[in-house]
Amino acid sequence: MDLHFTAEQRHDDGTLEREFILGEIPGTLWTPGSVSDPAPLILMAHNNGLPKSEPRLVARARTTAAHGYTVASIDAAGCGARPHSAAAMQARADLRRAMQAGEPVDEIFESLVGPLVEGAVPEWRTALDALLELPGLNGPVGYSGWTALGIRLAVTEPRITAAGFFAGGYVPRAQREEARQLTIPLRFLLQWDDEGNPRQRALDLFDAFGSKEKTLSANMGGHVGTPAFELAEGVGFFGRHLK
Amino acid sequence: MDLHFTAEQRHDDGTLEREFILGEIPGTLWTPGSVSDPAPLILMAHNNGLPKSEPRLVARARTTAAHGYTVASIDAAGCGARPHSAAAMQARADLRRAMQAGEPVDEIFESLVGPLVEGAVPEWRTALDALLELPGLNGPVGYSGWTALGIRLAVTEPRITAAGFFAGGYVPRAQREEARQLTIPLRFLLQWDDEGNPRQRALDLFDAFGSKEKTLSANMGGHVGTPAFELAEGVGFFGRHLK
Repeated sequence: MDLHFTAEQRHDDGTLEREFILGEIPGTLWTPGSVSDPAPLILMAHNNGLPKSEPRLVARARTTAAHGYTVASIDAAGCGARPHSAAAMQARADLRRAMQAGEPVDEIFESLVGPLVEGAVPEWRTALDALLELPGLNGPVGYSGWTALGIRLAVTEPRITAAGFFAGGYVPRAQREEARQLTIPLRFLLQWDDEGNPRQRALDLFDAFGSKEKTLSANMGGHVGTPAFELAEGVGFFGRHLK
Repeated sequence: MDLHFTAEQRHDDGTLEREFILGEIPGTLWTPGSVSDPAPLILMAHNNGLPKSEPRLVARARTTAAHGYTVASIDAAGCGARPHSAAAMQARADLRRAMQAGEPVDEIFESLVGPLVEGAVPEWRTALDALLELPGLNGPVGYSGWTALGIRLAVTEPRITAAGFFAGGYVPRAQREEARQLTIPLRFLLQWDDEGNPRQRALDLFDAFGSKEKTLSANMGGHVGTPAFELAEGVGFFGRHLK
């Protein structure tokens, strides 16, 4: 399957932002103004399948690219701007209702996120295959973002050699089990009062990861309150492992 | 009380390391090769009153100084190379015996560390007064190291505006209470499997700090296993708050 670029935009900092399509998979590729050799690639995904156009993901991708990384994101099957399944839409409605009513949400999260991960992983691997065929992309691969997707990707994809995860309160059972199989260096971000991610579960997940080198970095505030300096420290983490 | 320098040594990186004496208090001052204006000062103490000559503290002080900070450490009353009280020596012996026997150690820690903090804090404040009289030392003040001492110092000493703490498993009751009064930016390092610092207590202490800006950074391994990159991130933390 060939990857076709459909649009491009050059930013003031020299970063090139290109939209691509790969079969049915839409993606965005951010390339730094000057590329090192080998040129590392970071796969960047937003929690629970939010779109690759989400402004916080775009800001993170552009900052990371400005530090010399090629960054890629896709809207995988059932995620982002792709059609959502009827079951997923029902689960999201159930989730809202259960949260408002203060009812348990575990099983609803399981029925929503489990299938999302199952559907998304093959497409991220397809995208990785195609991206590594691009001229100049010959470096090690990292992953950044959505915890559940990242766990499955990292345990099935030996080309991923370092990962940064965010928020691990609700992770499907299958990925909580797989966490023990993870051995690559990890950086795990936690927002101490994340309204949608119970703290103790995130701490238990961090404890479960099999990696010898893993760092938990926890900050005050809710889900979207991660301080700006964490992005710089994340770039430092990838610098230690991908460069 | 006047501070007298008694020895000095210039290192290859330009850092100047000077021993000083202030009344009965012996100290070491590390000054960077080139000093910024204002010139920030970091007070650096080792857990449980270990000596300022301890090689890991010296390495941390020299690296921090090489990043443009003046760093000071003292052996406060009852700590380091100063005479240890008979009660403290008895408590350390009791502690070793209780740990080997797998017996509870809380009360022994309380009887050892509580008085150490009480005795050390006035001397650190005396040292801070004298250090800020030195020519060129006119910047904000940070604290790095021993958690229990740092809590008491930070709540009693408004000149301290940012603090990095390490290991908070056993902290005297008085400082666990005072933790809530702390409001300055904090960076709290935890070794996930620290044999001498129960993890849950350290997490509870982190939760208790009153600071709005506080970061927990946890890494794998035992008490002396803090990875080297944490020192760089600590320097980054002080850079955000003291420069």
